[in-house]
Amino acid sequence: MRMIFRFPENPILRPADVKPSRPDMEVACLLNPGAFVHNGRIGLLLRVAERPVQEDGFISTPVLDPEAPDGMRIVKSSTAERGQASDARLFVHEGQCYLTTLSHLRLAWSDDGVRFEVEPEPVLIGNGKLESFGIEDARVCCIDGVYNITYTAVSDAGYGVGLIRTKDWKTFDREGMIFPPPNKDCALFPEKINGHYYALHRPTHNDIGGPWIWISRSPDLLHWGAHQWIARPRPGWEAMKIGAGAEPIRTPRGWLEIYHAVDAKGEYSLGLLLLDLNDPTKVLARSTSPIMRPAEDYETAGFMQNVVFTNGHVVDGDTVTMYYGAADSVICGARLSIAQMLESLNALDSGE
Amino acid sequence: MRMIFRFPENPILRPADVKPSRPDMEVACLLNPGAFVHNGRIGLLLRVAERPVQEDGFISTPVLDPEAPDGMRIVKSSTAERGQASDARLFVHEGQCYLTTLSHLRLAWSDDGVRFEVEPEPVLIGNGKLESFGIEDARVCCIDGVYNITYTAVSDAGYGVGLIRTKDWKTFDREGMIFPPPNKDCALFPEKINGHYYALHRPTHNDIGGPWIWISRSPDLLHWGAHQWIARPRPGWEAMKIGAGAEPIRTPRGWLEIYHAVDAKGEYSLGLLLLDLNDPTKVLARSTSPIMRPAEDYETAGFMQNVVFTNGHVVDGDTVTMYYGAADSVICGARLSIAQMLESLNALDSGE
Repeated sequence: MRMIFRFPENPILRPADVKPSRPDMEVACLLNPGAFVHNGRIGLLLRVAERPVQEDGFISTPVLDPEAPDGMRIVKSSTAERGQASDARLFVHEGQCYLTTLSHLRLAWSDDGVRFEVEPEPVLIGNGKLESFGIEDARVCCIDGVYNITYTAVSDAGYGVGLIRTKDWKTFDREGMIFPPPNKDCALFPEKINGHYYALHRPTHNDIGGPWIWISRSPDLLHWGAHQWIARPRPGWEAMKIGAGAEPIRTPRGWLEIYHAVDAKGEYSLGLLLLDLNDPTKVLARSTSPIMRPAEDYETAGFMQNVVFTNGHVVDGDTVTMYYGAADSVICGARLSIAQMLESLNALDSGE
Repeated sequence: MRMIFRFPENPILRPADVKPSRPDMEVACLLNPGAFVHNGRIGLLLRVAERPVQEDGFISTPVLDPEAPDGMRIVKSSTAERGQASDARLFVHEGQCYLTTLSHLRLAWSDDGVRFEVEPEPVLIGNGKLESFGIEDARVCCIDGVYNITYTAVSDAGYGVGLIRTKDWKTFDREGMIFPPPNKDCALFPEKINGHYYALHRPTHNDIGGPWIWISRSPDLLHWGAHQWIARPRPGWEAMKIGAGAEPIRTPRGWLEIYHAVDAKGEYSLGLLLLDLNDPTKVLARSTSPIMRPAEDYETAGFMQNVVFTNGHVVDGDTVTMYYGAADSVICGARLSIAQMLESLNALDSGE
């Protein structure tokens, strides 16, 4: 059964569609947008990854630094060693691990959900010592008229989950880091359940445990506890890492979560989790095969090949319009049916 | 200036002083006690690390498993390869990293603070899927008549910080995991500061960031947010890791924290942090050299050589009676003067 209907217009946004934030920067990648509806328009909160125009034989990357001129310094290395041989996202210089790009968040607006106009300036950039390597991969969850933006805050202290809140997309309240490092992929549930807010998130580690999906609860969205894991990698298409996508979707059968999974070759696919409506720490069902794998050219080739990664969608009746980053390079869209997704989970296991 | 007065009776507790929790187990190590005063007596909450009696050529370790007979199964490997060559605490078997021992918590009581009587049974053992590899390194912080026990909860999902509360040391409320993996070394502040509870803790990671000391705040001790780091490793005696000890001590000049530090050779020493009384996210001073290094035989030789590690103390006027684990093998005590510790921080830097 075909479950994913990619936009024929894909990719809908490319780096060339976005004006760099400074004249000395180039937009290397567009990635992983949050999505929301505001005043009847569809908004995307894009991750824009920039770097200085690169010179042969060097790696250079921007780092935010309040004490530097213009608030930014450039780390440039002729002898950089990649921290992970095949990972274009990292390098090591003088013992410090750096990102190869600096990300900020940029708004794009659309009336039809397909043609987006990108704002000329960043709406949010990294702020303070916990965000000197940038801010990434925003999820947007509207609760009681407030848009809650959960995002990855990166610095030399690691990557954790920050929270920024806005009602109007013009003024923003920075609420600090809500999950300490190493953590990312934080998706809030859009309503309280039995008196608690809930969030999915993704701690990681290299020795014991690893990049599994955890769930936590909160009285106020600012402070979190009762941490426990609900899903861990399984052999095959989700052997190495799994992490939540955008906010879980309320359905009569449970909370439906589209999550990403990484296999041993580094291929990013998408799967489904179904969580109990009244106790989302309970997994009712889980995909045994991916609902979406990289297949189109714009998904199989780019800054990171073979990546589909979603953290934003808009729901209208049975239709989920899902936005996703492809190959860590461009922004794409696809439509899915909630009924079809639920049907794909019939008779599937709820194993770990 | 001599600042540390070790008990002449050291070590005050050895593995032979503790009855194993099961006849088929041996107590491999005694480690890192929490300390408190209850009904006029001094209590220690010991970490007791057990394993099956080892056979030549094999490594075997217990894992808690509710589905196994007696709630425990033995993982035994004839071909185990250590995940980290020099680390006696870990091994890898069939792709899974295990601890070489299983820890529980045991009470010991004393009238004079030196001679302790160890209870014959564990008071707390690992419970549930987040504690299948045991519970370790308890800090005890009494707030408003309730003893708050923060401890390391270990399982195949990693190690995080759990919270258990008691008023009488007979009945206990398990409050779940308050800091998700990878995290340990959580020390609560003993009172609210400007309306917030505060905790020091220690996330870690192998790529960006690492084992630094962080601080967070909470409305209720159960849910935590506003995470930020306050101290990171510095070259020399604290080059590799740092982590909080027991609860910070209120002094007129600030919150005094005895912390542990690890150098490149794996030697664990102790240093001091002084934090602002009204805003403990501000570091006022920090030791430039250790206040205590492994020196006695019982500190330089054992399960892990060259370790002094403290997470428990009792304060009486100017005197801190500090309990500590030595060489990950035995329990020791020492006395320190708050005035002397503060004096040692005069004219020292407050750098990162």
